[in-house]
Amino acid sequence: MDYRVLLDDAMETARRSPDRGRVADYIPALAQADPTAFGMAIATVDGAVFGAGDWQHPFSIQSVSKLFTLALALAEGGDGLWAGVGREPSGNPFNSLVQLETEQGIPRNPFINAGALIVTDRLLKLTGDAVGAVRGFLQAESGNPEVGVDDSVASSEARHGHRNAAMAHFMASYGNLRNPVDSVLAHYYAHCAITASCRDLALAGLFLARHGIRADGSRLLSRSEAKRINAVLLTCGTYDAAGEFAYRVGLPGKSGVGGGILAVLPGRGTVCVWSPGLDAAGNSVLGVAALDALTTATGWSVF
Amino acid sequence: MDYRVLLDDAMETARRSPDRGRVADYIPALAQADPTAFGMAIATVDGAVFGAGDWQHPFSIQSVSKLFTLALALAEGGDGLWAGVGREPSGNPFNSLVQLETEQGIPRNPFINAGALIVTDRLLKLTGDAVGAVRGFLQAESGNPEVGVDDSVASSEARHGHRNAAMAHFMASYGNLRNPVDSVLAHYYAHCAITASCRDLALAGLFLARHGIRADGSRLLSRSEAKRINAVLLTCGTYDAAGEFAYRVGLPGKSGVGGGILAVLPGRGTVCVWSPGLDAAGNSVLGVAALDALTTATGWSVF
Amino acid sequence: MDYRVLLDDAMETARRSPDRGRVADYIPALAQADPTAFGMAIATVDGAVFGAGDWQHPFSIQSVSKLFTLALALAEGGDGLWAGVGREPSGNPFNSLVQLETEQGIPRNPFINAGALIVTDRLLKLTGDAVGAVRGFLQAESGNPEVGVDDSVASSEARHGHRNAAMAHFMASYGNLRNPVDSVLAHYYAHCAITASCRDLALAGLFLARHGIRADGSRLLSRSEAKRINAVLLTCGTYDAAGEFAYRVGLPGKSGVGGGILAVLPGRGTVCVWSPGLDAAGNSVLGVAALDALTTATGWSVF
Amino acid sequence: MDYRVLLDDAMETARRSPDRGRVADYIPALAQADPTAFGMAIATVDGAVFGAGDWQHPFSIQSVSKLFTLALALAEGGDGLWAGVGREPSGNPFNSLVQLETEQGIPRNPFINAGALIVTDRLLKLTGDAVGAVRGFLQAESGNPEVGVDDSVASSEARHGHRNAAMAHFMASYGNLRNPVDSVLAHYYAHCAITASCRDLALAGLFLARHGIRADGSRLLSRSEAKRINAVLLTCGTYDAAGEFAYRVGLPGKSGVGGGILAVLPGRGTVCVWSPGLDAAGNSVLGVAALDALTTATGWSVF
Repeated sequence: MDYRVLLDDAMETARRSPDRGRVADYIPALAQADPTAFGMAIATVDGAVFGAGDWQHPFSIQSVSKLFTLALALAEGGDGLWAGVGREPSGNPFNSLVQLETEQGIPRNPFINAGALIVTDRLLKLTGDAVGAVRGFLQAESGNPEVGVDDSVASSEARHGHRNAAMAHFMASYGNLRNPVDSVLAHYYAHCAITASCRDLALAGLFLARHGIRADGSRLLSRSEAKRINAVLLTCGTYDAAGEFAYRVGLPGKSGVGGGILAVLPGRGTVCVWSPGLDAAGNSVLGVAALDALTTATGWSVF
Repeated sequence: MDYRVLLDDAMETARRSPDRGRVADYIPALAQADPTAFGMAIATVDGAVFGAGDWQHPFSIQSVSKLFTLALALAEGGDGLWAGVGREPSGNPFNSLVQLETEQGIPRNPFINAGALIVTDRLLKLTGDAVGAVRGFLQAESGNPEVGVDDSVASSEARHGHRNAAMAHFMASYGNLRNPVDSVLAHYYAHCAITASCRDLALAGLFLARHGIRADGSRLLSRSEAKRINAVLLTCGTYDAAGEFAYRVGLPGKSGVGGGILAVLPGRGTVCVWSPGLDAAGNSVLGVAALDALTTATGWSVF
Repeated sequence: MDYRVLLDDAMETARRSPDRGRVADYIPALAQADPTAFGMAIATVDGAVFGAGDWQHPFSIQSVSKLFTLALALAEGGDGLWAGVGREPSGNPFNSLVQLETEQGIPRNPFINAGALIVTDRLLKLTGDAVGAVRGFLQAESGNPEVGVDDSVASSEARHGHRNAAMAHFMASYGNLRNPVDSVLAHYYAHCAITASCRDLALAGLFLARHGIRADGSRLLSRSEAKRINAVLLTCGTYDAAGEFAYRVGLPGKSGVGGGILAVLPGRGTVCVWSPGLDAAGNSVLGVAALDALTTATGWSVF
Repeated sequence: MDYRVLLDDAMETARRSPDRGRVADYIPALAQADPTAFGMAIATVDGAVFGAGDWQHPFSIQSVSKLFTLALALAEGGDGLWAGVGREPSGNPFNSLVQLETEQGIPRNPFINAGALIVTDRLLKLTGDAVGAVRGFLQAESGNPEVGVDDSVASSEARHGHRNAAMAHFMASYGNLRNPVDSVLAHYYAHCAITASCRDLALAGLFLARHGIRADGSRLLSRSEAKRINAVLLTCGTYDAAGEFAYRVGLPGKSGVGGGILAVLPGRGTVCVWSPGLDAAGNSVLGVAALDALTTATGWSVF
């Protein structure tokens, strides 16, 4: 199978989409993203990586980082994490406070913003440096020491982050934070502001395709834990459109408002795609379309 | 692999569960189920079937029927179905009216009660006999002509069905029913009141493991449609515990308050388990435990 | 004080309103109402009545009837009523099902549709003929034997009443109805379909201004009960705009989607206004404006 | 009428209540309140004041302060206030975030916490010192220069105020704050931490009974504005029990979790009662009972 041809074809099909979506503009740093950028990469479990388009161009990974904070928090602290965050689809937008109130400050899952704040809080408690842990992991797995935090994005998020601050204070009111609100927010904004390319993310996600094994052959998670993260990705990884994504793409995946999506083919590899135009649910329009085209062409699917 | 040994082991592990759950008692006909009943069957894509415990004992399939109404409605009417029902996890109990109001009478997915009413309505419109279509399909796939409707269960449901009637009228108020409320309810209660055994259901579900091919070799659904039903099962098939089921079991599955669960191993086969004691979300306690044990032992998982 | 001049002035001021609202059109029978109709009447505790405009023209009283069902249910059955319906403002539209689910089938107050269904149900149980009781009361108090039910409106409501049917079934599912759903709905639609004029309603409401005394001098309710109904009117009588109505008009009042509003000046009299154009909350636009003008000019207010 | 006898009788009746409620304990400073404290005062429009029990003992006025911030914000800034806060009953607990999300950051009314934060924000913008404005007004109207802020209560609130911080950040995310979140919270906590006695509050509330006229004869609010504040008090002044309070007491009133309630008899005077034990809605149990007894005995009611 010639992965480069597959990628070119999938991107070509996606480009025919009449709608390109809308670049996230809630902070200036994201609004500057080039709406025409489009890249895609496949990494295979043996560590090979193939790309097309802007696949080596770094972008703001945003919520894709939540996949890594979850994996690291589980690797460091184990199942205790699930006392403070659930693993059910939310049925609500990613930054809703309603459900949080109904469910007494326990967020529905680790990928809505409230849940990711809890995971960040726990990882910070476990490591003393949540953002350092995520950045270090991405650098190691991708072999790219230039993966780093874009401070201008992080500080811009902080300035516009009243809703995240609201959620953090709200969960603190239920006793569900282990660190001060301000520290949790700072680490959360920083790991969301990491910049990496499709290539970097495809490589960094391979531990999920390898059932828990890192690039250096060491084990990050048990086979069972890795599968379970894939399950949470499939049911909750693409905001309030997880059902739609499972229906169209059929793979576990995590998206971010920077326009990136990282998807996993268990036992086989990963696919990462990037295009900044988003749909109403916050997922990359061309990204979903390209993954749809790729999985339709190849028959790749967990189902 | 000796499937009978696998089934015995999984059931043995499940029986150690300290909690046996609670038999559904909202209608007398269900409350009479034997709380100690426990059966399990595996069917493989070649049509072989293996069982243990009460695997040949018929029980009330209840919401497991919704998997078949969905498949038949898609086979008969195609994608137009999705205009009237979504495919996102609901994040709410299976019989909640709240979300239905927020979302203007379009239920979240085909497996919550409101969504199943819509699917029943469409199948009734397409075939003139929704319950007959489901019963006929189950008889044909299982080769068991005794699969039938328990009228006492159906009429008991009707007498206690004010909440389903509320949902049907509510959706009718939004113009989202094609048949009179009373007809839709009658067909809905009847197909939920079908009795079948683990053996029957495991065989009847094989079309999903065979990517759309029926027992007689004919095609019910396209490969893509079959995969997509599996995706909806995984994200929405077990009420408000779909995330948990995906996490623990890792297979697409559909549960019913009669205590049955039918799970799919794409490309490989199906597993059906039955034990009437339910957890708070409405899923069989021993059923989930046995599936958990079976998939842990075998490594079966879509992830 | 020359009441006729007051009424003319208030109506004149109201007519200057740039917005006339929108006639209810969810059923054909209401949609035919003349949008330019406008009438207003004042009745004083001694039984005198003064009017202007179309004050003697009968219209569909709709939810204004709920004031009378409440008074009669309390007069017949006493405080036990409050076990099945609350007396708090709802904060939600008049026909919402959401709150009903959160609060286990006990409607917030007797004036939202769900609550009025409960009151109708109880009055039906107490009298055997809820609609007859209301019609008889209106005829007696107004001295007008022509106050009656418009059957075409009632049957039109029934045909379009899926949402009310949904609410009735929903409350029945919580065991909060004493009669069959269909009977309750029939009596509900019938008493809402009563036709009466501003003159008739102003006279019929005087028992609330007279602290419980009927036109014939007999006592319907205790002084305390009459005051309490006024309190419920003020906090809940004008759908989800009760706060606004209290703010602008400052009197207890009940509105209907036929465009009528009946307001009470405790110890003094009543005012009834009618104009079919409604605002978004379902209250008569010119009706509220005329009451606002009248109370501003006179200083009438409970505050 | 001998007001002292009336007060003694009302308190005597209230003391027979089997339930004394529960002292607010969410912050240590409030938990220390003496659960047996009980005081009551009547002030008449001519400035005379009568009391019984602990009527001269200062207590933490908490949300009773919101009546004064509202009056001062309207006096200083006029009707523009209503662009940022509604005047409808909320139908939800006083500190719920749910409704705030549904209604895009505009709180339902000025007396739920979110609404009071908006009023504080506007008063701070108008005066530069919201807490100073309230304290100064209370001192002037009561003639008691010792009315002041209990800093230990204010700082204790701040330490435990994650939910208020959540609401403030949430409204800031909708652009509905004119000052920094931290300043608004500081002024909010400070004016809620004012200590005053029943005597002080009864006198300070007289402007509402005098239709807008202060103790020194100057006009704070127009007649119409004063009436309108009474309307908002009646529909929204006692948290999610406003309907119940209107039903039982029949007067506009504002309660606080310190156990105080200030009620208004338009044109006549005010009544203030204090007892720290609260009911589930956050209103003083003996306070409501004493007001109920007093208004039943005297027939005082706006209805």
